[in-house]
Amino acid sequence: MKRKLRMGMVGGGPGAFIGDVHRRAARINGDIDLVAGVFSSNWERNREKASELFIPEDRCYRSWQELFAGESALPEDERMDFVSIVTPNALHFPVSDAALAAGFHVMCEKPMTMNVSEALRLRDRVESSGKLFGLMHNYSAYPMVRQMRQMVRDGLLGDILKVSAEYILGWLSKPYFNKQSTWRVDPKLSGGSLCMADVGTHAQHLIHFVTGMEMTELNADLTCFVEGREIDDDGVVLVHYDNGARGIISCSLVSTGEENNFTLRIYGNEGGLEWHQQSPEELIYMTNDQPKRVIRRNWAGACQESRDLSRLPAGHPEGFLEAFANVYRAFADAIHDTIKGKVPTQEYPGIKDGISEMVFLETLLKNTASKEKWTAVPKIEDLRECK
Amino acid sequence: MKRKLRMGMVGGGPGAFIGDVHRRAARINGDIDLVAGVFSSNWERNREKASELFIPEDRCYRSWQELFAGESALPEDERMDFVSIVTPNALHFPVSDAALAAGFHVMCEKPMTMNVSEALRLRDRVESSGKLFGLMHNYSAYPMVRQMRQMVRDGLLGDILKVSAEYILGWLSKPYFNKQSTWRVDPKLSGGSLCMADVGTHAQHLIHFVTGMEMTELNADLTCFVEGREIDDDGVVLVHYDNGARGIISCSLVSTGEENNFTLRIYGNEGGLEWHQQSPEELIYMTNDQPKRVIRRNWAGACQESRDLSRLPAGHPEGFLEAFANVYRAFADAIHDTIKGKVPTQEYPGIKDGISEMVFLETLLKNTASKEKWTAVPKIEDLRECK
Amino acid sequence: MKRKLRMGMVGGGPGAFIGDVHRRAARINGDIDLVAGVFSSNWERNREKASELFIPEDRCYRSWQELFAGESALPEDERMDFVSIVTPNALHFPVSDAALAAGFHVMCEKPMTMNVSEALRLRDRVESSGKLFGLMHNYSAYPMVRQMRQMVRDGLLGDILKVSAEYILGWLSKPYFNKQSTWRVDPKLSGGSLCMADVGTHAQHLIHFVTGMEMTELNADLTCFVEGREIDDDGVVLVHYDNGARGIISCSLVSTGEENNFTLRIYGNEGGLEWHQQSPEELIYMTNDQPKRVIRRNWAGACQESRDLSRLPAGHPEGFLEAFANVYRAFADAIHDTIKGKVPTQEYPGIKDGISEMVFLETLLKNTASKEKWTAVPKIEDLRECK
Amino acid sequence: MKRKLRMGMVGGGPGAFIGDVHRRAARINGDIDLVAGVFSSNWERNREKASELFIPEDRCYRSWQELFAGESALPEDERMDFVSIVTPNALHFPVSDAALAAGFHVMCEKPMTMNVSEALRLRDRVESSGKLFGLMHNYSAYPMVRQMRQMVRDGLLGDILKVSAEYILGWLSKPYFNKQSTWRVDPKLSGGSLCMADVGTHAQHLIHFVTGMEMTELNADLTCFVEGREIDDDGVVLVHYDNGARGIISCSLVSTGEENNFTLRIYGNEGGLEWHQQSPEELIYMTNDQPKRVIRRNWAGACQESRDLSRLPAGHPEGFLEAFANVYRAFADAIHDTIKGKVPTQEYPGIKDGISEMVFLETLLKNTASKEKWTAVPKIEDLRECK
Repeated sequence: MKRKLRMGMVGGGPGAFIGDVHRRAARINGDIDLVAGVFSSNWERNREKASELFIPEDRCYRSWQELFAGESALPEDERMDFVSIVTPNALHFPVSDAALAAGFHVMCEKPMTMNVSEALRLRDRVESSGKLFGLMHNYSAYPMVRQMRQMVRDGLLGDILKVSAEYILGWLSKPYFNKQSTWRVDPKLSGGSLCMADVGTHAQHLIHFVTGMEMTELNADLTCFVEGREIDDDGVVLVHYDNGARGIISCSLVSTGEENNFTLRIYGNEGGLEWHQQSPEELIYMTNDQPKRVIRRNWAGACQESRDLSRLPAGHPEGFLEAFANVYRAFADAIHDTIKGKVPTQEYPGIKDGISEMVFLETLLKNTASKEKWTAVPKIEDLRECK
Repeated sequence: MKRKLRMGMVGGGPGAFIGDVHRRAARINGDIDLVAGVFSSNWERNREKASELFIPEDRCYRSWQELFAGESALPEDERMDFVSIVTPNALHFPVSDAALAAGFHVMCEKPMTMNVSEALRLRDRVESSGKLFGLMHNYSAYPMVRQMRQMVRDGLLGDILKVSAEYILGWLSKPYFNKQSTWRVDPKLSGGSLCMADVGTHAQHLIHFVTGMEMTELNADLTCFVEGREIDDDGVVLVHYDNGARGIISCSLVSTGEENNFTLRIYGNEGGLEWHQQSPEELIYMTNDQPKRVIRRNWAGACQESRDLSRLPAGHPEGFLEAFANVYRAFADAIHDTIKGKVPTQEYPGIKDGISEMVFLETLLKNTASKEKWTAVPKIEDLRECK
Repeated sequence: MKRKLRMGMVGGGPGAFIGDVHRRAARINGDIDLVAGVFSSNWERNREKASELFIPEDRCYRSWQELFAGESALPEDERMDFVSIVTPNALHFPVSDAALAAGFHVMCEKPMTMNVSEALRLRDRVESSGKLFGLMHNYSAYPMVRQMRQMVRDGLLGDILKVSAEYILGWLSKPYFNKQSTWRVDPKLSGGSLCMADVGTHAQHLIHFVTGMEMTELNADLTCFVEGREIDDDGVVLVHYDNGARGIISCSLVSTGEENNFTLRIYGNEGGLEWHQQSPEELIYMTNDQPKRVIRRNWAGACQESRDLSRLPAGHPEGFLEAFANVYRAFADAIHDTIKGKVPTQEYPGIKDGISEMVFLETLLKNTASKEKWTAVPKIEDLRECK
Repeated sequence: MKRKLRMGMVGGGPGAFIGDVHRRAARINGDIDLVAGVFSSNWERNREKASELFIPEDRCYRSWQELFAGESALPEDERMDFVSIVTPNALHFPVSDAALAAGFHVMCEKPMTMNVSEALRLRDRVESSGKLFGLMHNYSAYPMVRQMRQMVRDGLLGDILKVSAEYILGWLSKPYFNKQSTWRVDPKLSGGSLCMADVGTHAQHLIHFVTGMEMTELNADLTCFVEGREIDDDGVVLVHYDNGARGIISCSLVSTGEENNFTLRIYGNEGGLEWHQQSPEELIYMTNDQPKRVIRRNWAGACQESRDLSRLPAGHPEGFLEAFANVYRAFADAIHDTIKGKVPTQEYPGIKDGISEMVFLETLLKNTASKEKWTAVPKIEDLRECK
């Protein structure tokens, strides 16, 4: 019989958005207990959050270094199994690296690191540690995104010609919005990019996840619209893919009035697919010779994988938390495999996805700085020697 | 500091739909642990489910009678605080009654009982026990339903003239669909009504919840379309309300192709509101002198109560589980109040809602059996002497 | 070679809504010229409108009696071929009757008459005159309504169980709105019903048009919500049909915020259809075993008849005027048949549809006045002796 | 009193799409008669169409040269007032040029010419002839597009930051579709561009029409996806505008399953607007501090200009033909002005719009051929010396 897994957390203190999402998502499945953590660099706030989460005092640590040391010192059947890292971006690498080195599996919020160099070092660490590393690209775990991937694999679109991924929000259309945005708009804390790192990487990842296509070159137009800001708050990237397809990745944080409008459309010579994250329960499938079809989660026409990722019957809306919970479930399954001594199946995004997103960001920053139209996107497998 | 609450469960064995929803919903908030239960009358299946839920063997009981006895025998700081009842309808009353009698708070799936008589007896039991009784009318806990209620209270619709609640599904359009439907189509196990008890009560409850209006008389047309079935699988009820408003409650389990299409529309002489459960994140607000407004969860224009019931920013879809979780949160808050010795605030549906739904069902069955157009709907407060 | 047809008109003066629609619709096809008419009982307004319409002075008449006399006196190759009647309801019968008696084909706005008695007398007149009579039920000529009819005929819905027709507007939610409403709210000028005569008949007609089902009995709840009004401004009719299907016809002129929300849904045991007049280009087709399909005008899956009624490629929106124009085209085709001496094909609504709508109205007024739940709807073919 | 205008036509023979649209649109208003034309270079087909259109034999001409000569020879009160040019693109310039030279006003289908040079010569011809020249950019005459323009002018969006115009279809995703596409895919007959000339110019025009912004530089990625085709069937253009705004114009004829999906979105720092040509009756208005508003044609919130362009009440759908008819109405008004000796108001697209679209096309072809990222877009006023 499976036992419950023990999770630790770094980040996610009072007022933080994504930490709370990770905690709720981890709870939905019923097989993970949050047992330890360091939630804030401010001790009072750290304690407050730990208490609110029913975490015993002795497992609320003062720093991630103490967390890893303290948990390592516990007996194996008490010690946390993995750690969830939900800090600002700049800490993703050092904390992940330390956790793996200390022998803990890691589930890390994206973007994985601040640059390609960190990403490649983390790859080495994962390999040398023998531990599991999951990267939270939650959108890939929506049932209807899996449906898209299956339909592409089944050839229903024919040859893919065109993809369009758009991820636009309006919350940063004014110079200051709220506390959430502070570290994001500081280039030092967020990497060299705001908009593209924050939401562009979701778009870049999802296209690859669904189609398997790799970028060969890109042509970017990044912008900073809001005065006083020193980092992109809007941008478009035109992309050429290895199979001849072309893509548009359009992102914005200053599209006033938009909430979290992430849309993916894929057109092949036999059909097209359209998915809107804000209506995640349905997938539109278009061809030239049949009426438009609206495939809905857990209803007729939904593939087995999308059903396996569903918790409710069709018409009982699922959402964002369930997609997160699907990543946690897949990660937990892999941990259980390692506990049983089996080779784990990696049904969640990981280190390779993280390197890709860093390569994407670095290439588009390079293209932005140059007058050349197109900049080649390096292949990940060629990057080992760059270390 | 608040402690975690301990939940028991009756029902929700392998293959059951609603038990799983209750468990996930109770987990989302992070302050309830499932500690005991009886999940199936079949011992093997009961054990299997308990094990899957990480419940220790000694707290997986053979019957609900043993559950209440066993838990009562435990020390107070181990004993379950409340029980969730997710059995077929016919057991709602006896199990709830016994739980309250044994001193446990109860969260019961709807419909509350099989008839008005049971409902009134349960009311007495609640009063004599001094325990809390919650009835799971989850739709009332969607943030945008609370937004509707607030807008009605604020007078934005003026005098309400018309309400239309429609709850239609297609899954029972054939004689046999799946295991889920077995006890439902048996009049003895489900009460005298299938469609109206199953989904009509949701419609009846939500209209009252949002508007506060009380039915004065109704005119029903129930139908059984599928051959061999002896119970309504479709029906319409026309309603006159105490404020002069008129209503249509239209329900169906045989509307082929419909998933879980629950729609509520309310029109007053100053404005109209429209909400679709399958797109629960938005509320449409119409007037004759302004453009149509689409009020979205946690976005501009959403009222404080709807924000308090939200867990995610606008544009990150929430759904059915979160609405359930909102009921559990309110119920847990009330339990914590009793623990602290405070008079609890009842921000969740309860015994009165359950009596109303039974009165609604009995009146429409009576109207169906008669040739009179309109049948008066008794007032709940007049029913005490009926015992 | 076909010649252009010559149209006369009674009604449709300055400020009138529907007369202008008829004129534009008759023009779209390019084979009808408006050559004569009486547009208003006020001579100045009559002349003003005639002049605006480029009608020569000698063919702007002072009354419909003079119109028929004057045109009859013209040589056959100048004389109008048919007259369009777009007056307030109370004149539909006398003007139609006189036009037919004078030897002119008639295209009449609905409702056809004020009561069943007039309707039956008009039927006799049509028969004795040998002239064509068209009744403008424009919604039946939308391409996607024809698509619905074809799909029902093809058995794609299986046995029809349930129909729901809803036609709701908000423009009369206040005591006085605008000039348009004056004659409508006067029972003497509009027949005994406002809401049901105005929009209920559209719903009643479309259900029959699409399904072929005949009403056997009905149960109505008409209301007048606005103080000072003496006629229904809202109502619901429950219907039993001859094939065992059940129906809901829900109409309102006081649903604040609604524009012209006419929706028809049909459910059979094999599938369901949903059409919204405000988005007339698409038809939603649902089943339990396929994804939802959205059939769009002139796109893949659209039937031949719907394509024959289209003027534009898919994605180039058509609307209300084109549906009217389709009725005019069918009526013109039938006139051309009579000119060629052929028996005309009647592909447009006519006298039988007009009798049905009067029977519907009289029966629901009768049911409203009684305490009986259900009132039988007479069969049209039994009505001949009622003359 | 106004007289009816007399229209001639070049192009629009049997099987042609756009000629029929022009004819129907010109008819809707009731003040234009089609009196002469040359509809096909094939005499039989020319005669067939003329007969179908009730045009007398002597005014069905063998060539456009004969049309202009023949009509010029008629008495002034019989002679056509203007000619509608609906030929393949390559003839737009010579026929327009000859018509103006012969003294006829011209309404020409877009794109206006094959290149900038022709466009500038046509500008000179218009000026020297003193005749009116209208260019059919129908989308600019939708009521809700005028609403957009008004809202931008009223400052409701604040400073415009971002525009996104997307015009995608799927009909050419296979090498051969139907007769319609023959001349379009031949670079000699359609100009150097297929997709951008056909639909890209609509997007380019509408952005300028609504916002008044001028392009300063662009960065294009044109593609030909279908083997054997020698001309772009897909393309994206990134644009920098003179006010600092940025734009994306994304067009495709190979987006399988798309009908005529033309969408315009505009975001400023105070609000955003979204309009879909396939649902032309509504305009979505978003801000960060109010609920989303859906402004509908002729309903509350619609501006006067949009109402003046409406023919039907809200909820009675208008479409593509009415937008065309609005251009014809504005053009007819201007002709009436000239008849009365007044200086006409130009409320329709014209020569300047045509030059702009040619400059856009030439610049993007130039950018496509180069490796430079951005190519400057010449200002129209600087182009006079280019002659």
